[in-house]
Formats: sequence, structure tokens, C-alpha cells
Amino acid sequence: MSSKIKVAILGATGAVGQRFVQLLENHPWFEVTALTGSERSIGQKYGEACRWVLSGPIPAYAREMVIVPSAPGFEAQIAFSALPSEQAKEIEPELARAGYAICSNASSCRMWEDVPILIPEVNPDHTGLIEIQRKQRGWSGLIVTNPNCTSTGLTIAFRALHDAFSIRRAFIVSMQALSGAGYPGVASLDIIDNVIPYIGGEEEKVETEPLKMLGRFNGQGIDFAPIQLSAHTNRVAVIDGHMVVTSVEFRRDVSPQEAIDALAAFSAPEIVAGLPSAPKPVIELRTEADRPQPRRDRDSGNGMASVVGRVRKDPLFHIKFANLSHNTIRGAAGGAILNAELLVEQGWVR
Amino acid sequence: MSSKIKVAILGATGAVGQRFVQLLENHPWFEVTALTGSERSIGQKYGEACRWVLSGPIPAYAREMVIVPSAPGFEAQIAFSALPSEQAKEIEPELARAGYAICSNASSCRMWEDVPILIPEVNPDHTGLIEIQRKQRGWSGLIVTNPNCTSTGLTIAFRALHDAFSIRRAFIVSMQALSGAGYPGVASLDIIDNVIPYIGGEEEKVETEPLKMLGRFNGQGIDFAPIQLSAHTNRVAVIDGHMVVTSVEFRRDVSPQEAIDALAAFSAPEIVAGLPSAPKPVIELRTEADRPQPRRDRDSGNGMASVVGRVRKDPLFHIKFANLSHNTIRGAAGGAILNAELLVEQGWVR
Amino acid sequence: MSSKIKVAILGATGAVGQRFVQLLENHPWFEVTALTGSERSIGQKYGEACRWVLSGPIPAYAREMVIVPSAPGFEAQIAFSALPSEQAKEIEPELARAGYAICSNASSCRMWEDVPILIPEVNPDHTGLIEIQRKQRGWSGLIVTNPNCTSTGLTIAFRALHDAFSIRRAFIVSMQALSGAGYPGVASLDIIDNVIPYIGGEEEKVETEPLKMLGRFNGQGIDFAPIQLSAHTNRVAVIDGHMVVTSVEFRRDVSPQEAIDALAAFSAPEIVAGLPSAPKPVIELRTEADRPQPRRDRDSGNGMASVVGRVRKDPLFHIKFANLSHNTIRGAAGGAILNAELLVEQGWVR
Amino acid sequence: MSSKIKVAILGATGAVGQRFVQLLENHPWFEVTALTGSERSIGQKYGEACRWVLSGPIPAYAREMVIVPSAPGFEAQIAFSALPSEQAKEIEPELARAGYAICSNASSCRMWEDVPILIPEVNPDHTGLIEIQRKQRGWSGLIVTNPNCTSTGLTIAFRALHDAFSIRRAFIVSMQALSGAGYPGVASLDIIDNVIPYIGGEEEKVETEPLKMLGRFNGQGIDFAPIQLSAHTNRVAVIDGHMVVTSVEFRRDVSPQEAIDALAAFSAPEIVAGLPSAPKPVIELRTEADRPQPRRDRDSGNGMASVVGRVRKDPLFHIKFANLSHNTIRGAAGGAILNAELLVEQGWVR
Repeated sequence: MSSKIKVAILGATGAVGQRFVQLLENHPWFEVTALTGSERSIGQKYGEACRWVLSGPIPAYAREMVIVPSAPGFEAQIAFSALPSEQAKEIEPELARAGYAICSNASSCRMWEDVPILIPEVNPDHTGLIEIQRKQRGWSGLIVTNPNCTSTGLTIAFRALHDAFSIRRAFIVSMQALSGAGYPGVASLDIIDNVIPYIGGEEEKVETEPLKMLGRFNGQGIDFAPIQLSAHTNRVAVIDGHMVVTSVEFRRDVSPQEAIDALAAFSAPEIVAGLPSAPKPVIELRTEADRPQPRRDRDSGNGMASVVGRVRKDPLFHIKFANLSHNTIRGAAGGAILNAELLVEQGWVR
Repeated sequence: MSSKIKVAILGATGAVGQRFVQLLENHPWFEVTALTGSERSIGQKYGEACRWVLSGPIPAYAREMVIVPSAPGFEAQIAFSALPSEQAKEIEPELARAGYAICSNASSCRMWEDVPILIPEVNPDHTGLIEIQRKQRGWSGLIVTNPNCTSTGLTIAFRALHDAFSIRRAFIVSMQALSGAGYPGVASLDIIDNVIPYIGGEEEKVETEPLKMLGRFNGQGIDFAPIQLSAHTNRVAVIDGHMVVTSVEFRRDVSPQEAIDALAAFSAPEIVAGLPSAPKPVIELRTEADRPQPRRDRDSGNGMASVVGRVRKDPLFHIKFANLSHNTIRGAAGGAILNAELLVEQGWVR
Repeated sequence: MSSKIKVAILGATGAVGQRFVQLLENHPWFEVTALTGSERSIGQKYGEACRWVLSGPIPAYAREMVIVPSAPGFEAQIAFSALPSEQAKEIEPELARAGYAICSNASSCRMWEDVPILIPEVNPDHTGLIEIQRKQRGWSGLIVTNPNCTSTGLTIAFRALHDAFSIRRAFIVSMQALSGAGYPGVASLDIIDNVIPYIGGEEEKVETEPLKMLGRFNGQGIDFAPIQLSAHTNRVAVIDGHMVVTSVEFRRDVSPQEAIDALAAFSAPEIVAGLPSAPKPVIELRTEADRPQPRRDRDSGNGMASVVGRVRKDPLFHIKFANLSHNTIRGAAGGAILNAELLVEQGWVR
Repeated sequence: MSSKIKVAILGATGAVGQRFVQLLENHPWFEVTALTGSERSIGQKYGEACRWVLSGPIPAYAREMVIVPSAPGFEAQIAFSALPSEQAKEIEPELARAGYAICSNASSCRMWEDVPILIPEVNPDHTGLIEIQRKQRGWSGLIVTNPNCTSTGLTIAFRALHDAFSIRRAFIVSMQALSGAGYPGVASLDIIDNVIPYIGGEEEKVETEPLKMLGRFNGQGIDFAPIQLSAHTNRVAVIDGHMVVTSVEFRRDVSPQEAIDALAAFSAPEIVAGLPSAPKPVIELRTEADRPQPRRDRDSGNGMASVVGRVRKDPLFHIKFANLSHNTIRGAAGGAILNAELLVEQGWVR
């Protein structure tokens, strides 16, 4: 008889859903008790319904599980959502009302005033919004979201820098991995020997979500951080790992060495540092001239670290640097799992 | 008996040298009369000494030519230099003294005060420096250079925008092709499923060379344009074609539509527009959301166009856009050939 | 007033349809007068309905053409078919009955007893089947097909060898390009840093179609060549160009030099050699140790050559070699156009 | 005080050397006590001398170790050799004479009559040759080798099939990963969007080494297996994992199902099954139509499994199938480590 917390994965057959299935194998606190899928796959065994695209085999625990509908009724306390945004918009609130704690990777509810975009190392107190959402919406459950995969690693680095020096504005240019587009996602004919300088809706998310996460919970809602961001988002021929380069202006002059010191000194709040999926260190600083690199650094901290390198003087703003994080682990499934761990640790889920 | 102008290719066996060999086949004005190479290859036939890495076969005219030393003595009026920078620094001035007109792709002399970095559509009057260099150095020949491959396409777009609105500063992030590193260049183990966020010496060039080209020839030298640039340069898994994204601030507010109009209205000075290698249009404006792309757009204008797309409002500066140009054609061999055509048209070479 | 032969492209918006559009620009004999498409695109301009995936822009002539249904009614003598096989099976016979000469890239009719699989350099007399099909089916038009893209280049080489020495059996292993799967086709997540050792239905085609093409037209039908083939077909991360390696056993001992001589001596029948799209030479023999290669050799003969290299002794059979041909030019659209040229030259279309 | 067996890595800074360093971290039986390198790196710390190209950081244990010469003097019982073949030819016998047990990945001694090419699951009794080499050469140490990376996985599958049915001959076509060529190895300009149908010296090794391994130790030497092999070896754009397809003829008719049963029933000899690096199962049978694939299956059995799929009828021989194994783990460093474990288990090293 297991004493683990029962969790469901919504949209378990897709690319992010598969990552949840993979990362939750042998999780010390959570036990997967339900996998949900689309009409077509309901009633089928996961091992048959799923076209598994990750390395390695389908975890044994999931293979024989029968896929159920993405609707109230399954037995679980937490539901990890890998649903497409349009579906998530309807289903997640319905499940929150029914008492489930939703840790969502979908973008649909992120900008709702009473829903936090949560990175435990960045804004663990934003879970205070859960009280508000329960009161306002009459939910017995809750919804927390993790940010867009491109923002995630960078927002962790920005947390360290913003706390130390107050960021005024920043340019952000991404070179994003293919797995961020799901499966089948980007056609090979579009990306081999090529770059696509456009990802629909992505620049808006990258320019907005960090401001909410770096903002302040005022007891009623979030005061967005007074930072201005400009993003260019690009797709490159990389399987996993979003590379981002950025130039940052602070409210006062900041040298590269000061920035390096602040990044190196950063650590997660104590309540977060002990969570099972929390990487140590949160920010991994590389000193080589040519790192981070997606293939070589994406698995840092089991795919949960934010890897920073090339911190140097910027001729226009103050500093510039490169950042890498694993887009389907830290930037999606792993991030949502860490969020769920925080909810347990903070007592929102028991 | 040919009445064409005799030209040599210095460093003809390397990757850029091969592009010269390829692009000069059937050139209407130029006839290749000498190919130079390193110690090891001197005396060998080009077809044997050269490990040809471009598509298609070695042009028939070059196959049987015997490689000669990179030193005065070969019969030619113009010498296209694909020499490594350290060698170019010694050899190019020696050849200019001996009467050859050097059109160099090497970086070594670019920042010399009396040597122009030349893009015919951008600064054809900078050839005025040739008078100065001849006077000061006692050369009967001359040296002109083409810029770093990453700057080339962007500087053409900047010419249009700077003329219309006066650029104040810009962020530039490149995603550069592998051929820019020569052959063998980047190891496949370093770039498949990867991005390298560093190219040695490149950011300095990108931040400096456009200021010289966009500057004003004052009769004695170049007054650099008062523009500030910040560059992040990255290597991606693309064969040919440098993608650049940029955010630009002007000295007054400029809307995307104004920028588009200025880019669309740009044309080369009349003396340039008729040159054999000049593309028409110089700037190719794409209106699709996801263009330009390296593989699909690098051959625009026979690899000589500067392709611009995604012109849109920038939240911090005024506009942002994406730019693509072929790094070994417009950005190297093709650019040098166009420079030579300009020299002929202007009467520096007869 | 044009005196060119009017041609239609069936299924013009797909990947192969686009190649037809591209290759027929400025064709000396043919003028495109109709483009057909699916329900969804009928009535739209080609430039709007088509997501163009080839390099370069959509040819100007096609941009404004309005897409019509794939059914009798359009004005043309020849119809090039890039239809999916299931559709081709219904539509092509209907059009042939209505008087159109169908040059099809679809597989559906290839193995019909009275339909030739045609490569002009291999079996130009197989068009004799057209008499049979007209008689049996009451068609005023006709259907000829080109083979599966993987068989094409190899069957040309086999023609030379079979004529000289009589092939008994052969092993064939392909490493096929992504464009062979159409667009969007293979997901990038499936092929970057990967090989897929399976292409549905492909091995059967490769093991069968060459036997029909290398067979003898007996006045009533085709006597298949008594050759046994075994194929392994694989997908690799290449945009265009199918690489095939083969080991061949003859009915008598044959040395590599004899095979090389036969391949070098091969030329197209006179009626074929003068056709506008016929490459010269048909078989391009490479002598370097490491050629052919897809990216460097696929454009040989404007994408119409069969490139052969590494002819050497096989320890089990007699010889082994590598073969490359461009799968969407020679192996699809270009092959069908050459077939149409042959039909005109032979007088089947006037 | 460690009671582990002391081991050295010869040529520790190269690509295969790095794999040894990585795989020997936390090995239950072995402790790395010496790293050797070239002239240039001797005396430097490994962390500084080595351009680390694998994923993840340099293992902490190796970072501060000082590189020593590849010559007798270092303290170790076993020396893993990742030396280039020309160096290995001189150095390995010298070290064997000096008492070291050499487990070599180099090809130079593989075909020596008294040196085994060893795969523990295939021919563990071939270590009997050690007696012979010691006697004949007066060595107190020994040399065993692991095979060429392309042969490794396939020879394991062949062991199962040969034992069951007696193989007569086979065609073998490889699609090999880039890491097999070392670092920097294959230039990116040679392999992106490309295949290279040639790897120097490789076909000879693939056609020979399996015959020695599948042969019989007769007390004095090895009677090679009476099998005939023909190989085509190709390089593809894959980081790790050699894909091989093969068609096999037996001395009697064998059905796909019989072959599948034999492959499924295969297990390592008992003395091997318990070794720390031995994968379970040795042969991993995949039943999906499109597996194995390099990126998705190379880590099977921690990179030590031989993955077999697509077992089906061959029209010319009896069966054909696809095989995959990790070329720098099972095919190089991991294979050599497993060999060392066998030497310990058999008592050759104490």
C-alpha cells in the first residue's frame, strides 16, 4: 500500500505528456494513478495509444494503464496538465472546481490575475494567489502554471540579477529547440540546414511572463515588475535545450564581475532547496568562452538547472550573457513537477 | 585573344578561394590567369591540390592551372585575396606595392585608416582612400577590402535606414553558417543538435566595421558613423547563409511602415546598379511571417541580395527585423568581385 | 500566341507538384495552362494556396494562376500527376479516358500490365504499351508512369550493366532524403541525430519496379527481367538526393574494370539523347574514393544524372558500388517531364 | 584506503579516452590512478589539457589528475588504451612486457595471431590466447582488444545466429555515427545534409574481425569462422550509435521466426552475465516496424546492448535485419571495460 500522493497526467500521450510520464517514474512523493487522453485514445492502454518519441522505452508502470477522459472522475489529488491551450482553458478550471490541484504547462490561464506563473526558486510566495482564486471562483482545487519554456531559465537568472541590481530593460534573442513545438511539430524539410526566425505567439509570452513572475504579490494580486523586454524568437535544428542570449540594462551601472557574483551567490529559498526535483546549484555558471551549448549542457542538474555563460560587458546596456535550459524538463514537465512539490511542501496539497 | 582583365586568386584552394574560382567562371569582364597557394601546393595542378568542398565539379578552366606562390610575379591586374589574415597582412601590401589591385576578403587591413571596407551599394566613394594609400605608401597598386561576412547584408539594410532616419544604436544577434569558419572549420561533433554561442573575434568586427562603412569620406579619411552597436554572434547547423536579427533605435521615432518604405525604396547608386554582379533589387523585402530563412533565401539575387523580413515594432528601441545574406557569396568572394567591378567602373583598374 | 504544348500539373501545391511548377518554368516545349488542387484550394490563386517549400520564389507564371479541380475540363494535352496514390488511382484513368496524356509520378498504376514504368534512357520502347491500353480500355489519352524515386538512378546503372553482362541478383540498401516523404513528411524530432530504418512500402517497390523496366516489351506486354533483388530502405537527415549502395551478381564473372567500362560507355538511345531534359552524360562516373555524396552531387546534370562511384570488387557477389540521384528531380518531376518529352518525340502527343 | 584495482587510461584526452574517463567514474571494481597523454599535455592537469566534448562536466576525480607519459612507470594493473593505432603498435607491447594488462581499443594488434579480439558474450574463451602470447613473447602482462565499433553489435547478434544455424555469408551495410571518427573528426561541412559513402579501412575490418571472434580457440590459436562477409560502410549525420543493416545466408533454410527465437534466447555465458558492465539482455529485440534508431536506442542497456529489429525474410538470402549499438560505449570504451572485468573474473588480473 503506497502512501504516495496520487497524481494524474492530462494529455499524457503528447510530447510533454511523455516527459511527465518519464520524469514521474520512481518519484519519491508522487504516484501516477491516471493518464488522460483524447477521445481517440480513451480506453486504450497507454503503451498502445502512445507513439513514444523520447529516448529509452516507455516506463513499465505506464505501459498497461488505461487512458481515461480529461474530466473529473479520476482518482488523484494533483493533475499535471500537458493539454493543448484551447482544451486547457475549459478543462483546467473545471477540474480545479472539482478539487484537483492543477499544475499546468498550458499557456491559457497563465495571465489570469489570480493564477500564478510559478518557478519555485523565483516566486514561491506567488502561491498566495491560490487563496484568492479559491475565494473568487469557489474552487476547492487550484491552478498554478509554469511559464513558457523560453522564459524559464532566463527568469531564474533575472531573479538573481533583479534582486541585486534592479533590471530596467533587456533584449532577448532565443534559439529554440524543436521539442518545444511538440510532436510531430516542425517538419524536417523546414529546419535541416536552416533557421526559422519566427515562432507564433512566442515573443509576446517572452516579453510578458517574466514581468509577472518577477513581480510582487501584494496580498491581492501581482504587481508586475517594471521591466521592459524585447524578444526575437527563432527555431534552430536542436532536439532539446533552448539557448537564449540577452543584453541587460540595470537601474545603475553594473559590471560583469558584479553580475557574475550575484549569479554565483544565488540560491533557492530554503523551502525550495530541499524539494526532490530542485537542482543544486539552481544557476550553473560556466566560464569557458563557448558555453553553454544545448547538447552539452541541457542535462545539467538533471535538466533542471539554468546554465549561464559568457557574462561580459555590453556596449549599449550593461551586461550581456548566454543562457540555456532544458525546454521540456525545466521548461515544461520538470518545472510543473517542481511546482507540485512546492505545493505539497507549502501545505496546499496534503 | 581575350580582352578581359586578368585576375589572380590568392589562397585559391581554401573554402573562400574555391568560391572565387566558382564565381569567376564565365565572368564577363575578368579572366583568371593565376591561382596561388601554400608552399605545399605550389607546382601542383589545381584539380589535384584542391580538396573541392562546394557543390558541383571544379570549373574546367581551373582544373589544369598550376598553383604559383602568393608573391609578385604572376600576370594579373587584380588579385582577389582569400588568404588567412596573418598571411594577408604581409603579402597584400607587398603585392599592392608591386602594382596589383588587391580586393581582399581578409580582415587584416580592414581597419587601416587608408584602406576602405567597401560595399559598392553602401559606400562607393570610399575608394577615394585609394589616392591616400598610394600617396602615403608609394603603392602603384591598391588594397580594398570587403567586410566581415556577418556585417555585410546588415550594413546594406542599415545604409537604407541610416540615410532615411539616422540610426543611433542597434542590437545585433547572429546565427551564422558553418562555411563562415572555412574548411574543415567546425567539427560536426560540435554542431549537430547544438548551437555554439561564440565565434572568436567576430563580435568586435560586427560592432566596428559597419561604423566605418556607414561613415563619411572627408577627403583624407573616414569619419566613422556615430552609431553604437552590440553584437552576440552564434554558430548554428546551417551550411551557407548568415541570419541576423536586430533591434534598431533611431535619432527620432520611426514606425515599422516608415522603415519598410525606406528599405523598399533603396537602390544602388547608378554606377553600381549596372555592374555584372550587382543584384536587383539590392534589398529583397519578404512579407511572410517566417522569412528570410537561410536555406530558402540565401540564393536570392544569385547570393548577392540582402534579404530583410519581419520588420516590426520593437518595444524598447524603434524597430526590429531579420536579415539574411549569403556569407561566402555576398559576404566573401562575391562581395570582393563586386568591389573589383566597381574599381574597373571607377577607372582605378584599366 | 504560343505554339507550345499545353500541360497541366495535377496536385500542384504539394512537394512534388511544386517541383513540376519549378522545372516547367521556361520549358522549351511545354506551357503550363492548368494547376489542379484539392477541394480546399480550388478557386484560390496558386501563390496564395501553396505553402512553397523549395528554394527561391514561386515562379512568376504560376503565382496568379487559379487552381482548378483534378477532373476533365482543363485545357491541356499532357497532365503531369503529383497526386497521392489513392487519388491517382481514380483520377488518372478518368483523365486518360477523356483524352489527356498522363505522365504520372504516383505509384498506383505502375504495376498495371498495360501501363509502362518509363525511364527514357532505359526502356523507351515500353511506350508500345500505350497501344494496348488504348485498345483494351478505350482511352483516347494514355498513362505512363515514372518509377519510385529510389529505383530510378539505380535502374539506369543497372541498364548499362544488364545489357553488358546480364545481372542475376543484387542487394540494394538506400539512404533516402527527406523530400521523398513529401511535406510536412518526416518530423524533425524523428530524424535529427537519427536514422529511420524503415519506409513503408518502399522495399517492395525497389524489389519489383526495376524488373519491369529492365524487362522486354513483347508486343503485348512486358516480360519481367529475370533478376532477384533484396532491398533495405532507410531514411537519413538529407534534404534531397537518394544514396543507394548495391552489391551485384552477374550470370558470369565480371571485374570492377569491366563494369566501369560498361557504365562509362553507356549512352541514351538517339531519340532520347536530344530531349531537352536529358542529361549528358546519363551516368556520371566519379573516381574519388568518397563520392557520390547527396549534397555535392545531387545537382549533376541539372538533377537528372545517375551518379555512380566506388565501383569495386564484392567479396560475395561480383561488384559493389554507390549510386546517387536527385529524388524529386530525376526521381519524380524531372523524370515525368522527360517521359513527356519522349512521348512528344515519339509522336504519342502532338 | 581503496581495495579497488588500479587502472590507467592511455590517450585519455581524445574522444574515446574521454569516454573511458566518464564510464570509469564510480566503477565498482576499478579506480583510475593514471591518465596518459601526448607530449604536449604531459604535466598538465587533465581538466586543463582536455577539450571535453562529451555531455556533462569532466568527472571530478579526473579534473586535477596530472597527465603522465604513455610509457611504463605509472601505477596500475590494467591499462585501457585509447591510443591512435600507430602509437598503440609500439606502446602496447612495451607495456604488456612491463606487466600491464592492456585492454585496447586500437586496431593495431587485433589481427595478431596470439591477441584475442574479445567480446565477453561472444568468445570469452579466446582469452586462452593470453597464455600463448605470454609464452611466445615473454610478457608478464597481456593484450586483449575489442573489435572495430561497427562489428561489435552485429557480432553479438551473429553469435546467437551462428550458434543456432551456422551462417554461411552476409551482406553488411553500415550507417555510422560521427563520434566513430574521433574529434575533431568529420567536418560539419562534409556531413550536414549529406552522407559520405566511404570510411577509410573500415570495410576491411568489418569483413574480417567478426570471423576471428566467431572462430574457435583450438588451444594454440584461432580457427576463423568459415563465413564470408561483404561490407559497405557509410557515414551519416548522427552523433552516437552505429546502425547496420544485414542480409544473412545460413547453411540451411532459416525462417525469420526461427531467427527471432534464437536472438531472443541468447544470453551471455554465466561468467559474463554477472559482470558489472554486462547489459541484460545482451540482445534487445525490438518489434516496432521502425526500430532500432540511433538516437532513441543507443542508450539501451546503458549503451552496452546490441539492439536488433526488423527481422524479416530476405528474398535472396534467408533473413535480413537492422542492428544498432553505441559505438563509443559498447563499440569502444565500454567494450574494453567489460573485457577488463572478464579478465578479472577469469583470474588473469588479480
